[in-house]
Amino acid sequence: MSNEFTVDAALLRPFAPPPRLLMGPGPITVDPRVLRAMSAQLVGQYDPAMTQCMNDTMALYRAVFKTNNRWTLLVDGTSRAGIEAVLVSLVEPGDKILVPIFGRFGHLLCEIAERAGAEVHRIERPWGEVFTTEEIEQAIRQVQPKVLAIVQGDTSTTLLQPLEHLGAICARYGVLFYSDATASIGGNPFETDAWQLDAVSVGLQKCLGGPSGSAPLTLSEKAVERIRQRRHVEAGIRTAQHQVGSGRRIASNYFDLGMIMDYWGEERLNHHTEATTMLYGARECARILLEEGVDQSIERHRLHGRAMAESLAAMNLQLFGDQRYKMHNVVGVYIPDGIAGEAVRSSMLNDFGIEIGTSFGPLHGKIWRIGTMGYNARKDAVLQTLAALEAVLRRAGHAMSANAGVDRALAVYAETADIR
Amino acid sequence: MSNEFTVDAALLRPFAPPPRLLMGPGPITVDPRVLRAMSAQLVGQYDPAMTQCMNDTMALYRAVFKTNNRWTLLVDGTSRAGIEAVLVSLVEPGDKILVPIFGRFGHLLCEIAERAGAEVHRIERPWGEVFTTEEIEQAIRQVQPKVLAIVQGDTSTTLLQPLEHLGAICARYGVLFYSDATASIGGNPFETDAWQLDAVSVGLQKCLGGPSGSAPLTLSEKAVERIRQRRHVEAGIRTAQHQVGSGRRIASNYFDLGMIMDYWGEERLNHHTEATTMLYGARECARILLEEGVDQSIERHRLHGRAMAESLAAMNLQLFGDQRYKMHNVVGVYIPDGIAGEAVRSSMLNDFGIEIGTSFGPLHGKIWRIGTMGYNARKDAVLQTLAALEAVLRRAGHAMSANAGVDRALAVYAETADIR
Repeated sequence: MSNEFTVDAALLRPFAPPPRLLMGPGPITVDPRVLRAMSAQLVGQYDPAMTQCMNDTMALYRAVFKTNNRWTLLVDGTSRAGIEAVLVSLVEPGDKILVPIFGRFGHLLCEIAERAGAEVHRIERPWGEVFTTEEIEQAIRQVQPKVLAIVQGDTSTTLLQPLEHLGAICARYGVLFYSDATASIGGNPFETDAWQLDAVSVGLQKCLGGPSGSAPLTLSEKAVERIRQRRHVEAGIRTAQHQVGSGRRIASNYFDLGMIMDYWGEERLNHHTEATTMLYGARECARILLEEGVDQSIERHRLHGRAMAESLAAMNLQLFGDQRYKMHNVVGVYIPDGIAGEAVRSSMLNDFGIEIGTSFGPLHGKIWRIGTMGYNARKDAVLQTLAALEAVLRRAGHAMSANAGVDRALAVYAETADIR
Repeated sequence: MSNEFTVDAALLRPFAPPPRLLMGPGPITVDPRVLRAMSAQLVGQYDPAMTQCMNDTMALYRAVFKTNNRWTLLVDGTSRAGIEAVLVSLVEPGDKILVPIFGRFGHLLCEIAERAGAEVHRIERPWGEVFTTEEIEQAIRQVQPKVLAIVQGDTSTTLLQPLEHLGAICARYGVLFYSDATASIGGNPFETDAWQLDAVSVGLQKCLGGPSGSAPLTLSEKAVERIRQRRHVEAGIRTAQHQVGSGRRIASNYFDLGMIMDYWGEERLNHHTEATTMLYGARECARILLEEGVDQSIERHRLHGRAMAESLAAMNLQLFGDQRYKMHNVVGVYIPDGIAGEAVRSSMLNDFGIEIGTSFGPLHGKIWRIGTMGYNARKDAVLQTLAALEAVLRRAGHAMSANAGVDRALAVYAETADIR
């Protein structure tokens, strides 16, 4: 046997990550309780303890999504795996889909839908703005799509699209209503049933305080019916009693939500091998959120987001985008003229151990993005970030009143002492 | 705000899995070092510590796969996500692919390839047998496929397909050679470069001793060239300097290996948000394997697999399948006439806390599958399983000499004391 493939001895040491306070647009510092939950030992794939854990996780996410949808489950992959699973399962090649784009993730929805063979219709807003309900309704009338797909909170612009009136419009026109709420769930209001959504997908790595790698999603009865028309059972495990749909087979095995439902449902038909450690993490994220209360968590994000944004403004910095529609959990701030944005981020990271975010696309080099979400929607995290940022900005030559950020944040916290 | 979506108070308690010794065909008990590694806190997605961790993980898996392939990386999903990523990226609609099927996972390769639009050509062997090199060469000559896709170890039958001579044949006929080695890597010989493989994908949950949820894979230069012809950069992050390929765009965004290479490569083009906790786990699985030595790990699996199989035979049980081609890490054993297979499994699990595997497809209800892999390829795990199984079988009425299994295993261990 060959011994030629050896690695440097340094690689045989365990990985030791440096301490970081992650105050960017996500992923953010994971709640230590989630890491502890993920360190539990495995049970077998069909162990009663495992199927109970899966059922419990479904129940917990129903409460997170505020839905009674039976089909509320996890896709084993990052949040974009959830998006692709929804789109490739809901959209048949040639189907029309309408995507209102107000940032990077709108483009992503288009890209994934195109690859699924959809006829994609776009409407666009400049980065920093959102759509009115009327604009979207008008586009629905014109396009008559099978699906409306829209991001709720697009971290690329830090803005939150109002969704509450779109469900009724979609229902009126016979359109399935899908939203990716990865960046917003848990930190901003979201009501699956009240807003009449047919599909929602999210990830753990934003306000839910977990790591990327699991994509919770929920499907309405209408969405399930559409997917069931394309039901398919794998050769190798298929038996005569399995009924299959008449629709075109979904173009992905991994993302075939019909098969994933058969795996999460009572049939427990073998599909993938559940990523048990990520399941434990997803379950714990939901458990922690519900222990606090979804509405209480949203209020906490509102408070710390407000403290961060007002404090940045008090530091002689200009906020980015239409502030009426800012997500609670992330704020964009213009890099001041004459300040080297990447040098500031580098000093924040390497000297203070605090990560803030850069930007891309039309905002590349123009704004920083600073998050206050999940485990890091906390007073100490906000104050540490503000104090460090003042120190770094001051050394970079930015003019501001001494202590303006921290003073403003403490004033916000004093005003709202009853919320925390 | 609504308070109607509440959950039962029991769900607000952390999940506490029962203790289990997982001796089925996988997933198996995770090495506690992997769980510890996964409990490390996150760093940012483009933190130098993170990109270094990604680069180190690539280097570690090159040694695991025994390859010099630059493009050796992780797909964020279970092992079947790795399979789908390889097939949807290598195969354009209409391309011919040849799949030799000798168990359930051969059917899976066909299913995934079909959904990717391939013209799938199958050859089949009854469950319990493997192919000769000549049979596969003849099929290659007849079909002239673009890709040969074959499982190395198919846990559904417990058999290992010899691959060592197929690479030269594929090279001669201009065929890309892909193998899914999820169930076999680390426990059976596998030589990516020496055997001239163009693509290999695996998972962590078998001999690597990790949880499901990350799919390491490696690609030869020829495979990369094929994928690069279909290169695509997402709108929203695309700039003028990005060159795109002339080939047909890959039908999946999540599984577009060209984009995943751009994310793992020096360009670090944003794609998914890396599942950092799974990355930590994958890195640790490889680190542990290389610390032991790949060849030493294979020998360990050979030893404990042999001890288990010979001991089961000594317990008046009949082994399933052509034993010349048995995987080291799992054995199939016929359920004796008159014994209720599921009652035995249930007593093993609920009375002794030990999981052994059932079967499906043509073997449904006919055999148990017992694994000795990864962290559980250990003397104490083998002996505990044999002692418990004897107790349960005896109570079920199975005739056997007292202590025959444990005696035989201890004899094997006494013979081979120098290996451990």
